[in-house]
Amino acid sequence: MNNKQIIFKKRPEGLPEADTWELQSNEIPELKDGEVLIEQQYISLDPAMRGWMNEGKSYIEPVQIDNVMRAGSVGKVIKSNNHPKYKEGDYLTGWGGVQQFTITDGNNWYQVDPNLAPLPMYIGTLGMPGMTAYFGILEVGKIKEGDTVLVSGAAGAVGSIVGQIAKIKGCKVIGIAGGAEKCKYIVEELGFDGAIDYKSETMKDALKRECPKGIDVYFDNVGGAILDAALSRLRMHARIVICGAISQYNNKNAIKGPSNYLSLLVNRATMQGMVVMDYAKDYRKAAMEMGMWIAQGKLKSKEDIYEGIENFHDTFLRLFSGNKMGKLVLKVSES
Amino acid sequence: MNNKQIIFKKRPEGLPEADTWELQSNEIPELKDGEVLIEQQYISLDPAMRGWMNEGKSYIEPVQIDNVMRAGSVGKVIKSNNHPKYKEGDYLTGWGGVQQFTITDGNNWYQVDPNLAPLPMYIGTLGMPGMTAYFGILEVGKIKEGDTVLVSGAAGAVGSIVGQIAKIKGCKVIGIAGGAEKCKYIVEELGFDGAIDYKSETMKDALKRECPKGIDVYFDNVGGAILDAALSRLRMHARIVICGAISQYNNKNAIKGPSNYLSLLVNRATMQGMVVMDYAKDYRKAAMEMGMWIAQGKLKSKEDIYEGIENFHDTFLRLFSGNKMGKLVLKVSES
Repeated sequence: MNNKQIIFKKRPEGLPEADTWELQSNEIPELKDGEVLIEQQYISLDPAMRGWMNEGKSYIEPVQIDNVMRAGSVGKVIKSNNHPKYKEGDYLTGWGGVQQFTITDGNNWYQVDPNLAPLPMYIGTLGMPGMTAYFGILEVGKIKEGDTVLVSGAAGAVGSIVGQIAKIKGCKVIGIAGGAEKCKYIVEELGFDGAIDYKSETMKDALKRECPKGIDVYFDNVGGAILDAALSRLRMHARIVICGAISQYNNKNAIKGPSNYLSLLVNRATMQGMVVMDYAKDYRKAAMEMGMWIAQGKLKSKEDIYEGIENFHDTFLRLFSGNKMGKLVLKVSES
Repeated sequence: MNNKQIIFKKRPEGLPEADTWELQSNEIPELKDGEVLIEQQYISLDPAMRGWMNEGKSYIEPVQIDNVMRAGSVGKVIKSNNHPKYKEGDYLTGWGGVQQFTITDGNNWYQVDPNLAPLPMYIGTLGMPGMTAYFGILEVGKIKEGDTVLVSGAAGAVGSIVGQIAKIKGCKVIGIAGGAEKCKYIVEELGFDGAIDYKSETMKDALKRECPKGIDVYFDNVGGAILDAALSRLRMHARIVICGAISQYNNKNAIKGPSNYLSLLVNRATMQGMVVMDYAKDYRKAAMEMGMWIAQGKLKSKEDIYEGIENFHDTFLRLFSGNKMGKLVLKVSES
């Protein structure tokens, strides 16, 4: 039994090309005492992965050349060598990387129940993207009833949950997404109050229409021109949550800083960055609350699932082309 | 007795030219009942004035064409027409504008005592610039003992006070200023722990030298490349106080946004804007505390005083050339 793995071979400049990685098929080593072998089912594809490929200091170590590409995953224990906690047939989620099998001592892996929620949801709404949305909008955005909340990447894994949580908390929610289909989805399926199609609308006019009284909280997943447009419509004491900047991750030169940042001064507003790992001790509480919202039909989760580890590169690029709908997931098990 | 006034005639693009204003000599109208006539002594020249000259929404109404140029001032009551509170000989500070005399009902003017502190200090360390420093570094910067605090415009009216308050509170303080004389001044006279001369040093190397462990609080008066350099050396949970952006105020095109703003994300840091007027209800408390520090010799105040209302334009430009030392003040009384 061999393990197909995506090995990180070359630090990309700009958008990763096919030779950024190499698909290898390697033997699976023997388990040491206390280890389990996991057959991975689903791999989480996230914009943050692009950041991990760059050299230099960040909130997490960069992926090293010739290592398996880092990724979150969910899979099934198929062999246990005296593991004290996990046995064959258990389902676990953790940092399994882009490969079909992984061996671990279970540290930083968490058991999940496939009967309570479909497996891909554990790397989406109930995993890192969902946690990012939950803590970002509640702890950093500090939303309160009646706030006007704007979110970019609104049909994506994080943005779609941000908007729905804000709706649950009594906010007016406007989403920014690319294309009519996504805009229709966030309003009709997810219950957002309005949508802006950044691909076909002028941001300035659209923001005026959708947020006539201005923005209390902007949850930014994209950076660039959209961040600047949002800055220009802040209300007093507005909060901007800096979660990501997908429009800038593949820049070959310096990224574009927000020209309108002095709006922070005029409006006594705050721009704050966040990294989800800081909230690890509260993941359980958040997962429980979000699980209940899902069960009550208040929170909807959509995964866009592609198949085959050999399609990793093409699928990964959908994150940046926007050619996907919901949380991007790659099924890598062949069984 | 005529009143020489600086009248705002033309909205400038970029650095104001001489025809931005006109020096007029106009008759002083009769006092209405309950009004006082103030002979202004000193006019406060501040970078913020440049912002008030632009059209469009900001934290304060723009100055209107053909009006007296707005400015803070301090002066002496030379005539009272039944004013309930102020009488001849009283000294008041308020928004007197760039003119030699002003008439007011006393609303938003405050009495000051020339025996407690020299008059120019009431529009400097004990006026708006001092209040900006006090509330900016304490309330927005939230400094605590042991923090490394970086401040730009460090020899200026706001920055010099920011740094001294941070020293009083037990922080390590590094100032950024232009030129050897200013750098020497902030270290030797004001007790800063270090200085960076942005005119002769590479910011990146200098920051590495002066803040080897990174920056906990950056108080930004300048924006532009210096803000970007500071962003690149933030410590975890750092706070950036956005007080001004003097390097950008005279840009003819869009201002330069901070390219390194994603450092906020990596370091879970916060960038927050402030406007001093929000703290008006606590000015008294702040003035009292700062007065005590001055009396105890812990807080030093330096004013750079020029004379003659006809020199307003040339003196004003010193704010942007940096050709001044401390709080810039114009003496306009001829007596």
